[in-house]
Formats: sequence, structure tokens, C-alpha cells
Amino acid sequence: MNVCMNEIATCEWLTIPAALPNAGMRQAAVIRQSQLTKPAGALGRLEDIAIRLAALQGTERPCVERVHIAVFAGDHGVAAENVSAFPQAVTAEMVKNFARGGAAICVAARALDASFEIVNLGTVHDTGPLAGVTNCRLGPGTANFTLEPAMDVYQLARALGIGRHAAERARLNGAQLFIGGEMGIGNTTAASALACALLDVPPERLAGPGTGLDSHGVARKIEVIRRALACHSMHHGTPLEALRRLGGFEIAALTGAYIACAHIGLPVLVDGFISSVAALAAVRLCPGAGGWLLYSHTSAEPGHRTVLDALDARPLLDLGMRLGEGSGAAVAVPLLRMACALHNDMATFAEAGVSEKSSQC
Amino acid sequence: MNVCMNEIATCEWLTIPAALPNAGMRQAAVIRQSQLTKPAGALGRLEDIAIRLAALQGTERPCVERVHIAVFAGDHGVAAENVSAFPQAVTAEMVKNFARGGAAICVAARALDASFEIVNLGTVHDTGPLAGVTNCRLGPGTANFTLEPAMDVYQLARALGIGRHAAERARLNGAQLFIGGEMGIGNTTAASALACALLDVPPERLAGPGTGLDSHGVARKIEVIRRALACHSMHHGTPLEALRRLGGFEIAALTGAYIACAHIGLPVLVDGFISSVAALAAVRLCPGAGGWLLYSHTSAEPGHRTVLDALDARPLLDLGMRLGEGSGAAVAVPLLRMACALHNDMATFAEAGVSEKSSQC
Repeated sequence: MNVCMNEIATCEWLTIPAALPNAGMRQAAVIRQSQLTKPAGALGRLEDIAIRLAALQGTERPCVERVHIAVFAGDHGVAAENVSAFPQAVTAEMVKNFARGGAAICVAARALDASFEIVNLGTVHDTGPLAGVTNCRLGPGTANFTLEPAMDVYQLARALGIGRHAAERARLNGAQLFIGGEMGIGNTTAASALACALLDVPPERLAGPGTGLDSHGVARKIEVIRRALACHSMHHGTPLEALRRLGGFEIAALTGAYIACAHIGLPVLVDGFISSVAALAAVRLCPGAGGWLLYSHTSAEPGHRTVLDALDARPLLDLGMRLGEGSGAAVAVPLLRMACALHNDMATFAEAGVSEKSSQC
Repeated sequence: MNVCMNEIATCEWLTIPAALPNAGMRQAAVIRQSQLTKPAGALGRLEDIAIRLAALQGTERPCVERVHIAVFAGDHGVAAENVSAFPQAVTAEMVKNFARGGAAICVAARALDASFEIVNLGTVHDTGPLAGVTNCRLGPGTANFTLEPAMDVYQLARALGIGRHAAERARLNGAQLFIGGEMGIGNTTAASALACALLDVPPERLAGPGTGLDSHGVARKIEVIRRALACHSMHHGTPLEALRRLGGFEIAALTGAYIACAHIGLPVLVDGFISSVAALAAVRLCPGAGGWLLYSHTSAEPGHRTVLDALDARPLLDLGMRLGEGSGAAVAVPLLRMACALHNDMATFAEAGVSEKSSQC
């Protein structure tokens, strides 16, 4: 049963301007940092995080205890081109694994005490009803984009809207931070193709091993993306059309979720390669959205650095992770929480009676 | 009152061999990682951490929920050479701040639910009795090592033993991970001088701004270290003698604690620049100790990279931190905990009924 039938298939909402961070609270947080009992700047990027979250949350004392994680799953027609190290059945199998709590992101969500939801936008294999999984089936995966657009206009609009609704549910549930995850065999190929179109770079700059292709597999993946770009080259001039032709259900849902978070003023912690490509699409569609996106980690997928550079993003972690599901973002949450705790709870020089820096040094 | 008077002033225990990690449990953890529902290697360095902790803790399922943090404080005679951006009174003032819970490491320890102790080995200014602070006063700070050895042989032996006892208390309290922190105005100068002697590199390779020296201050610090190295050059041939002449009470305590952890088989998470120099001394004194040391972060203090390279260490974080106190190690603890949770709690392919990688890809 499709529970998302009443999704309105329009993309007009994407053009709403993003909310503005609170400049006054940013300044208050900067002043507070300068008064804490430590040499100025000694907490490094943890200081920047606390100040940025203060601006985004509109408070001198930010908090990310309440985290919402939404994992979007969908299959990809381009999997028929043999671009993944794993069979396509794994997408639906992993949706079941998410529902049973056995996947990495489930373990991380429990460790973080985060709220967690799974949205199935269209796996080839039917999972049947599963507790904790919202079924928003847009089709049995996308079309093979080496032959035709991955999505029709209604599928695209609905995938974006499904992401938007996840962001709005997160806000209604009191979330202070949003994490989007993805699962879909073939989705590094889709994300690479989409990023090639958005950045106008050749596929060898972005295509990598994904879940574990060898060098022959990567060469095949590059050739598949090259064919897809040639097939759609006359048509992917706008970011929205590039997303429709080369993206995927879960990538579009992430894009919609990120833009909606920027509209409603909910900070986002972006995961790895695929999520960053969705972030790139989001920023192209809604330039102000970039202010609401924090970047968690640099993926081992080699194309990630090119995408991060285009976003002027400097992730917090570089641990060689390349799992997706939102796992890298989840692993970085404790750094944000620690940044907030230090900012909020350290004593000031005045409170502690500690001498400040000498004027001559 | 000095509560550590019965410390035995001998260094013979340093030569006890380190415990050996459990190779069988390491292999069991490697096998478990290969069975979890993710592409092989997709959790990057989190997999390596879990496997290494399994070997160190002698269990297939490692755990670092119980963390002990010991902060060692002491003053430095070399502060008379105007090598710090902060006045020497700050060491004792920060000991009071630790006792009242207002310092960064206190906030982090609470966030981690870690046990926390402060050991005052000798501040110039008397703090009086403070709850949570063990008073092990070895003198009113070390001697100015541009003129004479920083410590006499009894002070050195007792500082090492005080660190050893902290490690043993941690083990008795059930700690699964040990973090040492330090506080002492002037201690980047002492640590730089000691590392220069141990690594035979010139002071300009290792001396940096510390708590916030400007370029003139750094030049002065380099000159001070150069004088100290010249003063002691005939005598710092052994690591122990280098530690005595150029180190500090808290640096020697960290060195003793690290070696004792290696003896009793308690994994250590090393903090930043000063802690890493203590780790270097520990490894020179007890080569097997290196196997018990994990490295948390790369400090903004520029000399840290040289010390890390000498230790063949690759820290987990690089956030521009340079606070000391053990703060960088504390910030990295959630990464270790997440590595353990993922390793212990993810489903295997067999448990989840997820297909494995295709043979051809």
C-alpha cells in the first residue's frame, strides 16, 4: 500500500528562500567563547561548530541532543549495467535489516538515542509491510538512465516532497539536528552522474569503487556514466532536470529534505558522497540552503573531495568510511554534542578567577 | 600536606616488559568484521579501532564505556624565561577550576560519564586542600632547566611513580580506557626541549605558540630551548636523563602512567603535543608500551606532527585543538565507543539474510 499518494506533485516550494541564521546569537556565542577558561581558539573547530549552531538555532547555548535520522531507500535502473559489487536484491534486504535494527545506522542511532525512520521510495523487490518503514513507493526503482530519464516529472516532485515531509516530521518531533541517509544499489553511479552534470566534470573525476568494484568495474562504471551524460546532454541544463534524469528516488528525497530543513530552520549534518551530491543539488536549487548544512566526514569514495570542494565544505572527520546510510554523519554527532557541552558548561575566566593572557607575550 | 610521601623513589619498574595484546582475539574480531552487513572495509578506521581494542582487552567484543581521566598538574622553572602567553599563577588557578568542574576536561569528563581525578605534583602557588585533587607536591615547580636539571633523581622517580599509581587506580576502578591530561604553564617549552633531545632535532622544528605566543615569543622560546639543550648536551644521552633534565613533573607522571598501563594491559588514549612527548619518552623507556597507546588528535601546535611521525602515530581527529588537559583525547572517546558498538551490535550477513558481494564485479 502506498501511504504517500496524496503527495502534491509540484516543485514550486523549492524556490522559497532559506531561513536566515541569527546574527545576534552568533555574536553572543563568539563573545562567550572568548570568555571561557582556555586560550583563545584552543578548542579549534569545536568553537566554530558551537558558534555556528548558536546562529542556526537562534540561541546563545545550542544543543543537539535530539537528533532525527531518516534513511531513504530506492533502487536504480542503472544497476542493470552491472555497476555495483552487490546484487540489486540487497536494497530490499537492507531495508529489512534497517527495520530489524541490524544495520550500522540502526546501531549508531541507538547509541545516539536518535529518532529513526526508514522511507522506502521504491525497491525492485517487495519487502512487504515492515514496522518502522514508511512505504512511499514511486515505482520498482528508477528507469535505466543510460536509455531514458531516471524519473518522470511526477516521480521527481513526489520524491522531493517525501524528503520535505521527513524534515517537517523531524521538526514536529522536536529534533535539533537532521540527518538523512540513503540505501540503493547503484546509487554511487547515479550520484556520480548527477555531480558530473552539475559540476561539468568528466566521469573519471567522480566515479569510484562504491561498495567495492575492482579497477575493471570502475572503468565500466565510467563508461556507463559517459553514455548517460551523452544521452541526456541536451536536457540537463537545469539542476532540477539533471536530478530527474540522472538522480534517484533517495537522492531526490535527500535534496528535498535538505531544502525543507533550510526553510524551517533545522540544521543538517550531511553524510558522505551521495548525501553531498544531494546537498549540491539542494544548494543549486535553493542557494541559501548551504548555510544550514554541516559536513560530517570525507568519504573514502574518491569523488567526494571534488564535490566537497564545490560546496566549499570542510568535513569534521576523515576516517576512511564509505558506507552511506547516514553512518558517517551519525558518527560525527558526538563531536557536535561535545562542542555544545564545552560552549555551554565551561566556566568563564571571571567565574573561575583565572588570570587572562598577558598583554606582552 | 603531602599524601604521596611513601612513594618509592626507584625507576627499576620501568624496565618490566609490556603486556602482549591477544592475537587470538584480534583474529576473532577481524573475522567478525568481515561478516557484518556492510561492504568490507566500509567503516574505515572504526574497524581498525574495534579490532585493536579487541586485541588489547582480550575479548572479541571490546568496550570503552568506563573511562578514567587523570590530569597531572605542575609548574615549570623555565616559565621565568617568559616563554608563555599566560602568567604562572594560572597553573594553580586552573587546578582550582578543575576541582570546581569548570575546565574543558571537566565538562568533557561529565559528558563521557568518565571517572576523573586531578593530581597536583607541585604548583608554585599553593591551592590549599581541594576536593578531588590529590596533593603529591614534589616542590614549588621544577627548576629552571636553562640553568640546572628540571628535577633531581628523587623527584623524577616519584613523578613517574605517581603516574604509575594513577594507572593502577584506574584499573582497580574497572576502567577500560585510560586518558592522561596535563596542566602547567611553560610545559610546551619543556615538552619541546625534551622531544628535541629524544629525537635529536633543532628547537625550531618543535617549538610553537603554545597557549598563544606571537612570533617574537616563539623566537624567544626557541632560543631558551637552544640554551637548555646546550647546557645539558653532555648529559641527556639516556631517555630517563633527558626526562629528568628537560621534562616536568606532569610530563614524567604521564610517562609513568603510560608505561604502567602497558604493564597492566590497560589501553591508553593519548591527547595532544605534551602527552605525545610523554608517550615518546615512554616508548623509549619501554618499547612494548607503544602497542597500548592509541592517538586521539593532531594538535594545532606545529611540532606535534614531528612527534607523531616519530611514534608512527596516526591520530583519529584533526580539529585544530591545542588545549591540553586531556581534552582532545576526551573528545575522541565517542569515536571509540561507536567503533565498539558497531562491531558488537551490527547484524551479520547470515543473521540478516542479506546477500554478499558478487564474485565478479
